Amino acid sequence: VADYFFGEIPHNPVGTIYASRKEAATAGVHRVTVQGISGNGTVGADSISVNGGYEDDIDLGDEIIYTGAGGNDPSTGKQIADQSLTQHGNAGMVVSEENGYPVRVLRGFKGDPKFSPPTGYRYDGLYRVNRHWSEIGKSGFRIWRFQLFRLSPQEAAPYIPAENVPAGQARPERAVGVASRIIRNTDVTNWVKAHYDYACQVCDTQLVLPVGMYAEGAHIRALGRPHDGPDTVDNVLCLCPNHHTLFDLGGLYVDRDFRVRDKDGATLGPLYRRSGHTVSAEHLQYHRTHFGYGE
Amino acid sequence: VADYFFGEIPHNPVGTIYASRKEAATAGVHRVTVQGISGNGTVGADSISVNGGYEDDIDLGDEIIYTGAGGNDPSTGKQIADQSLTQHGNAGMVVSEENGYPVRVLRGFKGDPKFSPPTGYRYDGLYRVNRHWSEIGKSGFRIWRFQLFRLSPQEAAPYIPAENVPAGQARPERAVGVASRIIRNTDVTNWVKAHYDYACQVCDTQLVLPVGMYAEGAHIRALGRPHDGPDTVDNVLCLCPNHHTLFDLGGLYVDRDFRVRDKDGATLGPLYRRSGHTVSAEHLQYHRTHFGYGE
Repeated sequence: VADYFFGEIPHNPVGTIYASRKEAATAGVHRVTVQGISGNGTVGADSISVNGGYEDDIDLGDEIIYTGAGGNDPSTGKQIADQSLTQHGNAGMVVSEENGYPVRVLRGFKGDPKFSPPTGYRYDGLYRVNRHWSEIGKSGFRIWRFQLFRLSPQEAAPYIPAENVPAGQARPERAVGVASRIIRNTDVTNWVKAHYDYACQVCDTQLVLPVGMYAEGAHIRALGRPHDGPDTVDNVLCLCPNHHTLFDLGGLYVDRDFRVRDKDGATLGPLYRRSGHTVSAEHLQYHRTHFGYGE
Repeated sequence: VADYFFGEIPHNPVGTIYASRKEAATAGVHRVTVQGISGNGTVGADSISVNGGYEDDIDLGDEIIYTGAGGNDPSTGKQIADQSLTQHGNAGMVVSEENGYPVRVLRGFKGDPKFSPPTGYRYDGLYRVNRHWSEIGKSGFRIWRFQLFRLSPQEAAPYIPAENVPAGQARPERAVGVASRIIRNTDVTNWVKAHYDYACQVCDTQLVLPVGMYAEGAHIRALGRPHDGPDTVDNVLCLCPNHHTLFDLGGLYVDRDFRVRDKDGATLGPLYRRSGHTVSAEHLQYHRTHFGYGE
């Protein structure tokens, strides 16, 4: 058995119960017996355990706001120190987010009773890491949080916390894992892209395709739970895929003076803004704060 | 009623039957009464009709290989001229592919009997355009083809061609549309990315994130139906997101001498290749041919 394996484990369908963490590890579903995250910054994270170990976890069934590893008191689940994005399995979660790797979820009996097995541990299917950010947790220390969504084939139905959820029989060519970007109001992003003539607001690149130009509308403050950013033009930047990737994964930010900076604070230049498009300073601040770049 | 609208039409659940194209147009499900594609290169395509109008169409239920518009004899469905990617609704299909817009599918009584209604027209849910390419069709003329996959919430279950498929009740924050990239064997792409130290083989860019470097493993000949490219290192390039986007959408290609060229044939420079990584000339040729760049 390899140390890491992405996707479904044969003969371990969704709903399989394990008496102990060790049994789940032996089966290959969650290959570490203590840590919450199986993985590292080189290969990614292939599975997590959700078992009430962190006070800031939020379990919504088919969506999980998962707290990164480190800095907590295992006996109480309370944070007693800041977390680092590069320590423990946290970097693995980012790599899985970047690549759209599927992450197995094992729920344990100490988790939210609404979605957790009464005893033992249950394999609950494949999730993807949608995004990550930093904030100050309940106990006042810096934590990193990962939003996970249940992957299809399971994601179609609302999550049902039953013992016998049927195993998804996915077509192998489609269900190994998908990296998804959620599309919202196309009018808003189309307006911003057209306003900049499809030129990136960071590097001025225009990608030229056979049928026209290509750019991406990047939401500064993310839409949906838990950030609930608005789908309005002041919350959208016109970016090339490279700078969209960097922006969404915390590899660059925009400072108070609308200068673009890399992760080490080096200035890449001004954020290009055209008359008629107000970029929200408040949402840029939200983005900075949530990637640990201060106010 | 606007000319274009993306996503589900209220009160028109999956499985709704329309007596005529006009009735489907009035309902807003497919807003044109003659053309197969509703859309254009500015807004994208919001719906298509699948009704046996093109001899090269392949209907697999939850997957459709759809022929672009133009060049056919409407009475026989046979191609009588080459198609252009920029004419009719074809450019709209590309825009929907680029942005992950959901495309409504209306099936008519002249389509493949396995998946089509015996009479009239049926709304069969939301699909996404996965990719497009060019080839010589059955009648010897150049056609453009679009592969569509059924979107969740419907995509989880195999497509059931019944009259009363239940309407998907999607969570609004997730089901409007997703642009997905399929993830395969992570070992193969990870090897290629590491081999190039995460530097793009076109522009040498390395994207630096807080937890490491970022690049994408781009399959030259696409995996899965109908291209069936292999998941092997000679079929994978290490690219930045910008050049991955351009490569996948036909905005650049690699010539016989491993020079990278844009859509107009201008040379961008050599494809950077490192010792130990053989890039398949055959697969690069396949990519060129399928985006209409000749042999």
